Amino acid sequence: MAFGWIDEQAEARRRAGLVRSLRPRPAASPLLDLASNDYLGLARHPEVTEGAARAARVWGGGATGSRLVTGTTELHTELERELAEFCGAEAALVFSSGYAANLAAVTALAPHGSLIVSDAGNHASLIDGCRLARGTTQVVAHADPEAVRKALHTHDGPAVVVCDTVFSVDGDAAPLARLAQVGREYGAGLVVDDAHGLGVLGDGGRGAPHAQGLAGAADVVATVTLSKSLGSQGGAVLGPARVIDHLVNAARTFIFDTGLAPAAAGAALAALRLLRREPERAARARAVAGELHARLTAEGLAAVRPDAAVVSVRAPSPEGAVRWAAECRAAGLAVGCFRPPSVPDGVSRLRLTARADLTGDQLERAVRVIRRTRP
Amino acid sequence: MAFGWIDEQAEARRRAGLVRSLRPRPAASPLLDLASNDYLGLARHPEVTEGAARAARVWGGGATGSRLVTGTTELHTELERELAEFCGAEAALVFSSGYAANLAAVTALAPHGSLIVSDAGNHASLIDGCRLARGTTQVVAHADPEAVRKALHTHDGPAVVVCDTVFSVDGDAAPLARLAQVGREYGAGLVVDDAHGLGVLGDGGRGAPHAQGLAGAADVVATVTLSKSLGSQGGAVLGPARVIDHLVNAARTFIFDTGLAPAAAGAALAALRLLRREPERAARARAVAGELHARLTAEGLAAVRPDAAVVSVRAPSPEGAVRWAAECRAAGLAVGCFRPPSVPDGVSRLRLTARADLTGDQLERAVRVIRRTRP
Ligand SMILES: Cc1ncc(COP(=O)(O)O)c(C=O)c1O
Ligand SMILES: Cc1ncc(COP(=O)(O)O)c(C=O)c1O
Repeated sequence: MAFGWIDEQAEARRRAGLVRSLRPRPAASPLLDLASNDYLGLARHPEVTEGAARAARVWGGGATGSRLVTGTTELHTELERELAEFCGAEAALVFSSGYAANLAAVTALAPHGSLIVSDAGNHASLIDGCRLARGTTQVVAHADPEAVRKALHTHDGPAVVVCDTVFSVDGDAAPLARLAQVGREYGAGLVVDDAHGLGVLGDGGRGAPHAQGLAGAADVVATVTLSKSLGSQGGAVLGPARVIDHLVNAARTFIFDTGLAPAAAGAALAALRLLRREPERAARARAVAGELHARLTAEGLAAVRPDAAVVSVRAPSPEGAVRWAAECRAAGLAVGCFRPPSVPDGVSRLRLTARADLTGDQLERAVRVIRRTRP
Repeated sequence: MAFGWIDEQAEARRRAGLVRSLRPRPAASPLLDLASNDYLGLARHPEVTEGAARAARVWGGGATGSRLVTGTTELHTELERELAEFCGAEAALVFSSGYAANLAAVTALAPHGSLIVSDAGNHASLIDGCRLARGTTQVVAHADPEAVRKALHTHDGPAVVVCDTVFSVDGDAAPLARLAQVGREYGAGLVVDDAHGLGVLGDGGRGAPHAQGLAGAADVVATVTLSKSLGSQGGAVLGPARVIDHLVNAARTFIFDTGLAPAAAGAALAALRLLRREPERAARARAVAGELHARLTAEGLAAVRPDAAVVSVRAPSPEGAVRWAAECRAAGLAVGCFRPPSVPDGVSRLRLTARADLTGDQLERAVRVIRRTRP
């Protein structure tokens, strides 16, 4: 029978304790949230939700077509201009998701005959970009510029080095400046996914490339998402205008996808303007993450020192991680739980996110619950 | 230099007259719109835009996380339940775009060792799904059940037949019932992209699978987009509950993507409810398309008989198509213009979309302009 093999896989997942299921949340959740990627606490900010509401009223419920047909409104252009300016890039192109932006950047910048050097810890969307691209992918050890050098050394022709700026599982940062330097030695471009950097790293949240002096560089392309610090949905590619023009002409997830909904563009634009006005939110998110890490470590928990706003805590096993997260939830605390196959190294962990608007009391409560429920 | 090869490609595009560029539109466009995919005229409907606005206020600007962490709200679940019920499927799963839904359906349903039989006219997102999937793809002649049979005949193991229900370029429908029959003879599943069928085909717009008696079948999976007839953004996969459970556990563009923004879910839900209340909108879109085709044909233009709401008119050349579309625009009419590499057969055309809310006068004006500007 069609799809018969699905049942075997489902049974195998059940036996391994790896079944995932959806847990719909109400509008007013009683849980303390250390699980979302709303790093700046903006998703529920009235200026952001009003930005969404206003955009829907003025521009409609959807973009009505692909960006090249009817799907580019003046609102999209405004968002692109302000995003580029904020991050210090020459130009920006907005997509329906960060996932689509990553597929676009990698596939359009790695043509037939090119080499893609991809960090082993990269996000699924970058990996899918590598799989879809016409170029050849070489996966290299995590955060290892010497491994990147070795890969580039063996290749003749166009090359790109691809990596997250902040890795989503452990919250560690990539050695961007050194990667850029190695790339330059070999004339390779650098494509970085700043999904967890925008709004958190750099001066006022301008992102990791800006913090490392790489914003505006002719050989650096950054992707961002509008769905984390900016509290909305969507993604963007930021880089030299000629690269952006190339994407408009060549990136399939741009050309064959409906434009981002006006409400999402409006919410992201409102969040961006808010962040410009209140740049201290970025530093505050980093400070909260640092404090969360310090307290967990003081309790003897195996937390990874955060480079941005993600704090990862190792769990003894997949089942242990699931039980731990469930007990946190029962005690009123929402935490993320990562386990195979979503973790590249097979190590299960709790994933905690610091929010700029977490209070000292909330932090203390969170640490208390995590300690008390540890497996 | 990094990305140096981009300039050569740009130059080649310029020489070939194939440069694409974005044309931002104002909120109140003076153009008569026969270019968008807003088939039911709902993107600007006050119930739809208020649905978006309300959802943003109640649920926030974004979903704040992936669907398996914090990104599933009760609003997502409500939309999934009502979509499934409307289309006659057992279950539904909502994605951030139709593109992501297609990547998910094809990759998750075509494991290693399986065969994917893919129609030569399929949408880019289905093609990318085939490229990403672990299974082996065999591309078969357009709308040809016998070619599908031949491909399935050579294979032993799981197989899926993948196609658009309505092809986006020419607006022709796939022979769904026969494809399903051939699939069944070989125990293959059928994965159909109903992006241009939902809201237009079937009883009250329930879509092509419903119209062909395939809704609710154990071996049929449909994908839809929320960005065309429903005037919003997002996509969904509809099918047996066990298939949907499988996607939750296995589809990368579900697991590693932020959930659809509440405003988009709210807009789509409002549009869906409106369509239930006013089911005549679907038939009206089909009737407008039929009339548009009849009038164009009467003028001696090479229009393809529409099976849904897309009417395609052949142009003599890429440059001819571009000039034709530009002259229509100068005369106040927005039309789509498809040319290589966006057309599988290399034939450039104008792409016109019928909207349920087009008046007789508007239709007449559109036909007059298209005839007058023909190359
Ligand atoms: C590192 C990284 N890149 C890209 C994405 C995808 O962005 P989006 O959710 O906006 O599609 C995510 C998470 O969702 C991410 O963590
Ligand atoms: C046939 C078809 N499938 C899928 C898509 C992608 O849907 P979405 O734009 O919602 O990503 C489109 C158009 O955009 C389409 O025409």
